[in-house]
Amino acid sequence: MTSQNPIFIPGPTNIPEVLRKAVDMPTIDHRSPVFGKILHPALDGVKQVLKTTEGQVFVFPSTGTGGWETAITNTLSPGDKVLATRNGMFSHRWIDMCQRHGLDVQVVMQEWGEGVPADRFEEILTADKNHEIKVVLATHNETATGVKSDIAAVRRALDAANHPAMLFVDGVSSIGSMDFRMDEWGVDVAITGSQKGFMLPPGLAIIGFSPKAMDAVKGAKLPRTFFDIRDMAKTYANNGFPYTPPVGLLNGLKLSTEMLLDEGLENVFARHHRIAEGVRQAVRAWGLELCAVRPELYSDSITAIRTPEGFDANRIVSHALNTYDVAFGTGLGDVAGKVFRIGHLGSLTDVMALSGIATAEMVMADLGLPITLGSGVAAAQEHYRNSTQAAQKAAA
Amino acid sequence: MTSQNPIFIPGPTNIPEVLRKAVDMPTIDHRSPVFGKILHPALDGVKQVLKTTEGQVFVFPSTGTGGWETAITNTLSPGDKVLATRNGMFSHRWIDMCQRHGLDVQVVMQEWGEGVPADRFEEILTADKNHEIKVVLATHNETATGVKSDIAAVRRALDAANHPAMLFVDGVSSIGSMDFRMDEWGVDVAITGSQKGFMLPPGLAIIGFSPKAMDAVKGAKLPRTFFDIRDMAKTYANNGFPYTPPVGLLNGLKLSTEMLLDEGLENVFARHHRIAEGVRQAVRAWGLELCAVRPELYSDSITAIRTPEGFDANRIVSHALNTYDVAFGTGLGDVAGKVFRIGHLGSLTDVMALSGIATAEMVMADLGLPITLGSGVAAAQEHYRNSTQAAQKAAA
Amino acid sequence: MTSQNPIFIPGPTNIPEVLRKAVDMPTIDHRSPVFGKILHPALDGVKQVLKTTEGQVFVFPSTGTGGWETAITNTLSPGDKVLATRNGMFSHRWIDMCQRHGLDVQVVMQEWGEGVPADRFEEILTADKNHEIKVVLATHNETATGVKSDIAAVRRALDAANHPAMLFVDGVSSIGSMDFRMDEWGVDVAITGSQKGFMLPPGLAIIGFSPKAMDAVKGAKLPRTFFDIRDMAKTYANNGFPYTPPVGLLNGLKLSTEMLLDEGLENVFARHHRIAEGVRQAVRAWGLELCAVRPELYSDSITAIRTPEGFDANRIVSHALNTYDVAFGTGLGDVAGKVFRIGHLGSLTDVMALSGIATAEMVMADLGLPITLGSGVAAAQEHYRNSTQAAQKAAA
Amino acid sequence: MTSQNPIFIPGPTNIPEVLRKAVDMPTIDHRSPVFGKILHPALDGVKQVLKTTEGQVFVFPSTGTGGWETAITNTLSPGDKVLATRNGMFSHRWIDMCQRHGLDVQVVMQEWGEGVPADRFEEILTADKNHEIKVVLATHNETATGVKSDIAAVRRALDAANHPAMLFVDGVSSIGSMDFRMDEWGVDVAITGSQKGFMLPPGLAIIGFSPKAMDAVKGAKLPRTFFDIRDMAKTYANNGFPYTPPVGLLNGLKLSTEMLLDEGLENVFARHHRIAEGVRQAVRAWGLELCAVRPELYSDSITAIRTPEGFDANRIVSHALNTYDVAFGTGLGDVAGKVFRIGHLGSLTDVMALSGIATAEMVMADLGLPITLGSGVAAAQEHYRNSTQAAQKAAA
Repeated sequence: MTSQNPIFIPGPTNIPEVLRKAVDMPTIDHRSPVFGKILHPALDGVKQVLKTTEGQVFVFPSTGTGGWETAITNTLSPGDKVLATRNGMFSHRWIDMCQRHGLDVQVVMQEWGEGVPADRFEEILTADKNHEIKVVLATHNETATGVKSDIAAVRRALDAANHPAMLFVDGVSSIGSMDFRMDEWGVDVAITGSQKGFMLPPGLAIIGFSPKAMDAVKGAKLPRTFFDIRDMAKTYANNGFPYTPPVGLLNGLKLSTEMLLDEGLENVFARHHRIAEGVRQAVRAWGLELCAVRPELYSDSITAIRTPEGFDANRIVSHALNTYDVAFGTGLGDVAGKVFRIGHLGSLTDVMALSGIATAEMVMADLGLPITLGSGVAAAQEHYRNSTQAAQKAAA
Repeated sequence: MTSQNPIFIPGPTNIPEVLRKAVDMPTIDHRSPVFGKILHPALDGVKQVLKTTEGQVFVFPSTGTGGWETAITNTLSPGDKVLATRNGMFSHRWIDMCQRHGLDVQVVMQEWGEGVPADRFEEILTADKNHEIKVVLATHNETATGVKSDIAAVRRALDAANHPAMLFVDGVSSIGSMDFRMDEWGVDVAITGSQKGFMLPPGLAIIGFSPKAMDAVKGAKLPRTFFDIRDMAKTYANNGFPYTPPVGLLNGLKLSTEMLLDEGLENVFARHHRIAEGVRQAVRAWGLELCAVRPELYSDSITAIRTPEGFDANRIVSHALNTYDVAFGTGLGDVAGKVFRIGHLGSLTDVMALSGIATAEMVMADLGLPITLGSGVAAAQEHYRNSTQAAQKAAA
Repeated sequence: MTSQNPIFIPGPTNIPEVLRKAVDMPTIDHRSPVFGKILHPALDGVKQVLKTTEGQVFVFPSTGTGGWETAITNTLSPGDKVLATRNGMFSHRWIDMCQRHGLDVQVVMQEWGEGVPADRFEEILTADKNHEIKVVLATHNETATGVKSDIAAVRRALDAANHPAMLFVDGVSSIGSMDFRMDEWGVDVAITGSQKGFMLPPGLAIIGFSPKAMDAVKGAKLPRTFFDIRDMAKTYANNGFPYTPPVGLLNGLKLSTEMLLDEGLENVFARHHRIAEGVRQAVRAWGLELCAVRPELYSDSITAIRTPEGFDANRIVSHALNTYDVAFGTGLGDVAGKVFRIGHLGSLTDVMALSGIATAEMVMADLGLPITLGSGVAAAQEHYRNSTQAAQKAAA
Repeated sequence: MTSQNPIFIPGPTNIPEVLRKAVDMPTIDHRSPVFGKILHPALDGVKQVLKTTEGQVFVFPSTGTGGWETAITNTLSPGDKVLATRNGMFSHRWIDMCQRHGLDVQVVMQEWGEGVPADRFEEILTADKNHEIKVVLATHNETATGVKSDIAAVRRALDAANHPAMLFVDGVSSIGSMDFRMDEWGVDVAITGSQKGFMLPPGLAIIGFSPKAMDAVKGAKLPRTFFDIRDMAKTYANNGFPYTPPVGLLNGLKLSTEMLLDEGLENVFARHHRIAEGVRQAVRAWGLELCAVRPELYSDSITAIRTPEGFDANRIVSHALNTYDVAFGTGLGDVAGKVFRIGHLGSLTDVMALSGIATAEMVMADLGLPITLGSGVAAAQEHYRNSTQAAQKAAA
């Protein structure tokens, strides 16, 4: 039922052997002191990955979606106003969640392929003289379009407008793979999951709260119990958990953060950039366009590739799976049928990336697209050869 | 960090080898057809374990607590009235959750050690002429006290009162270990988790909704997104999931239900009863009392044992862990320090149970309680010998 | 310590997930009836893979080398004469073993890259009027040179000479990957290991004995105990083993044979041929030569590639490992430094093969060989595209 | 197919979780430098466990039986004389192997239950004026009878006779569980396997050679190739192996020796003594006799228990397996049907031991033996309580 080929969906990622073994634990007594020796190093490791010293980290048996709900239900009350952009499926869904929870969402529509419009946010925030906007939502990396937004710029927009709104950032497909600076960027709630940059199976929502966000918890009137961070904070202090904790995944998270920090976060980011750039060179060699409209928006964890007008991009994904047993990502929402996606986050090597590129070439040729076999591979090889050797020289 | 000894906490349970291997899966593409071949057999298996043909089953990356929240947020609106008993830590917490969600909870206080008072419920329901009570909450098996309540009697109370309230049952520590009949007992929402009767790691909330509960979803005004069963129902129909599914745990759930159904649910229940009865014989031999006040309340998945007045029962749990590397359960809430608990649910053998009983004897002797070494073991051995041979003769 | 990249050494192979899990067993009582339920299906499965109905199969906790020793010590006496060819490292070593055991080996020297010379054997056997030659040794697939020999032709040589010598075949790197017909070819002892076509970790010698070879056991005077098949035969009959059996590996062997037979041996062979042919197309595109001197000698499990005169082929292997974390095989013995090897036996996909080819290209380019990046990949892609689609059409 | 109960066969043992994971490795390139980083620490660790600084250690993909064959074929020539005792199944088998290899074995017959007769050996060695005896064989711990022999006394016998014979010791079921001193006792070849004190799956023969034994290799004329330590020594020096090495087991051996040395060998021995003594107390409480005839012969890794005259001891083993899914050891050879065996070597806890004792009680009661349920358990509990607390006080 499982393939020996690497997968190229934009998460969950290929899971390193050691992490699989760390997660696959026999049952321990989660009320014994052993649990604290797993929980706290995991939380501390996440803080370092988030680059926060002031924030508090909470971990739920849930997913990134649960992380969004944790963010809003712990800090907001029905009718509260939030500002958001819709530029992909995941920003779309977060907006939808806010609306279902009775929040008043001011949505800035963007083309899918564009990023968060910091300048437009600055205008809106400046105009919000009464500070009715409580929270600005931003998706750091739109998994659906392979677009990375400039969170520092959003922070500058808030500062320029001298606006007290909190900044909530969905870092699900960026944190642990791409540069993220919770404290420096003034992120009030940062959200991710176990199955992307942390290279683990799905099952954990991982959330950082700034001191300002913690303050907001007291006044928040949206109902919550499972996602209530007050229960988390109280039980963590006693090496406990408000309900049965996912011990194996936490044990994996502990090791995952050790691995990321041992490699060095900047090296992890450089590795992802290097691999992503190889994929982009391949796309260029194929004569195709990215969904992301400008180079500064290019994601280093996911590449969404536009297929020619009139060609159903989903055929690539299903043919790859059926014929070569390789999983790519389909287009979602507004770009369904128009893009296919190559995930290259988490634990991936040049060699694995090349096998994905080579497969995409075969698939596109099979489906009649005018692709020269080997062209994308050669472009990526050239990039990997040079950058690998440069990296090794730098390390030596 | 892990012990070779079996654990005797009241869940998570000892995990069978095959289930650990089923959960420990490499990443698959959860948007491919493979996922449906894991999801649907798992859901169908759960339906059979719940003994429902009419209900729908939903599975969340969460815990039993998330299951409670799923139940109430999908069916109720702020200010709705619910009827509940507080007879242990888990019924206490569910009540607390309802209150945090703005529900009006009518609480019938019970001694911890008592069950759900079906007769008292009948009086209240009969008196509720305007049918303001929307839901009756019942905890089938109070994990904190080792008390099993009579859900069929609660159903009879509702029927006798001719009351249309829904019946929501927490079966977290009973389902898959003790008899549970969703359709026959008219249970509208049944809740459990992966880490008890299903013998899996924690990480799944497993919930069954009756047609009547499904009807209530439309009018429910409590906000929810992560736990919204409408998104689940819609995506399941397309072999999907509203967000990243916990594929490994679902694969484990599929196999777990196969194992339970292959053994035969009645045989599974008989096995738990047999093992539990051995533990109770040991307690009797020690001259100690159960927390459960009457035989018909005795749980077959957890035994909570009262220690003599003035003796701190927690010392048993910590001494067992520190000296013999064996995990028992502490007393919680109102019975903290007054009871210790032996969990015997999930995958357990007579032989494993005997090692727990033998350890408890050593611990109690070490701590100065007047226990005759071997006395509880001998009582349990006698029971296991006779019942095992009887069971084997019956099977032959 | 382990890489996520596939390996391309000529065995041990990449191990399928399900086989790793089958091998990783908790301890069972190997003297209980459970053992027979693992042993006998494994032995029966091997018989089918060997295509023998008349032979008996024995499995030792050992390696292919132990299999050779089993073959000779159970059938021969000091001073006995055997006929063999030296055309690679493994035939060389088997000859060396015979000599160390006091056998009189008539060696036909061949260039490395050539196969077993059936015609030359026929001459020698015809000339051996007194039938002093007791055994003809043949290496079906020379792992060192990627050369497959024609065992049917060796049998025809024996028959043409009307010679009663037994035929012992080293099928270590062919059995389970390439066509092998023990009964049809009149093979008297067939030898393999767990770590090649059976896709398991190393640790098993797997040997088939024909009735004629079994007859020879009685008169054999070479001393042996560990490798004595009489003890094996006797204990197997009682579901036992002469010493502690490697239960996990046997459990893996049982499943491995099921997998091979479920896929269909002819399909397994076709798959290996298809993947190997892609590798050979790549070599051709690079303008390099194979070590195997004629197409009918090309192995479908290993390709040994000659590098240009004056270039140390070992540099490819070490550079691939150090720079790209990919393992190829070095040249051994007479062809050390002259060839490098790509193993493509066992469990491998087109996609994995392409990643090996792409890596080899980068490595050779890095080391200054005049290789056009992407050229070998494109050649292999073309082959894989066409052959995969043809295979799928045929299956549909 | 596997039981959750611990096993009580005298090896293979219960395998600790971390060792199973260390063994279950993906394939690495065993010709890369990574292999040396597994092999050499494993060999060094074994040297420390053997308490040798002068000896060399060799590891074969084989079993203890292969270790015996390694010992004799590398050091002896056909017709050489060896002195041995037959006092159990394993000493019997080693003698048989010597005879099959054409050695001249002088056998001192002993009752099964007795140890190696050092005094008798001294007489024979003294009488052997021409020093025809080349080797004295001794089984340190007879797995069949639970008898530990005094190897230091055998050394003293050799010294007293001023005899140059080498001393070969089978430590299969003692090394890593009971005190063993290769250098101090002047052991020339020490033999064990992976599946006993090292707590690993079967599949490794582990052998130490003293400098004197290494010297004997040159003149040894018994044929061998697979077991030739000269090939091992030569390849180890280059981080290699003469054939495909069992990498996973070697990786497990590396970790196993780390675990033993971290715990401290003396602590490991004390733990085994403590657990064994509990089992013996239970046997005493049952009113049964040990097979070992005197206390100084009692093994700390295996207890063989005599059943009453006329009672078939094998019934205990089969009833335990069929009724309680617990594996004990049967009697072998001369004591078949007269004893059953409880293995308590490797990784075992007091708590696991108690479950074995409790099971044995149920089984014997079921079969009509006059056993008081709980009696053996109580005796063992008393011993474990006192000795555990004493050990913890000593450690504190």
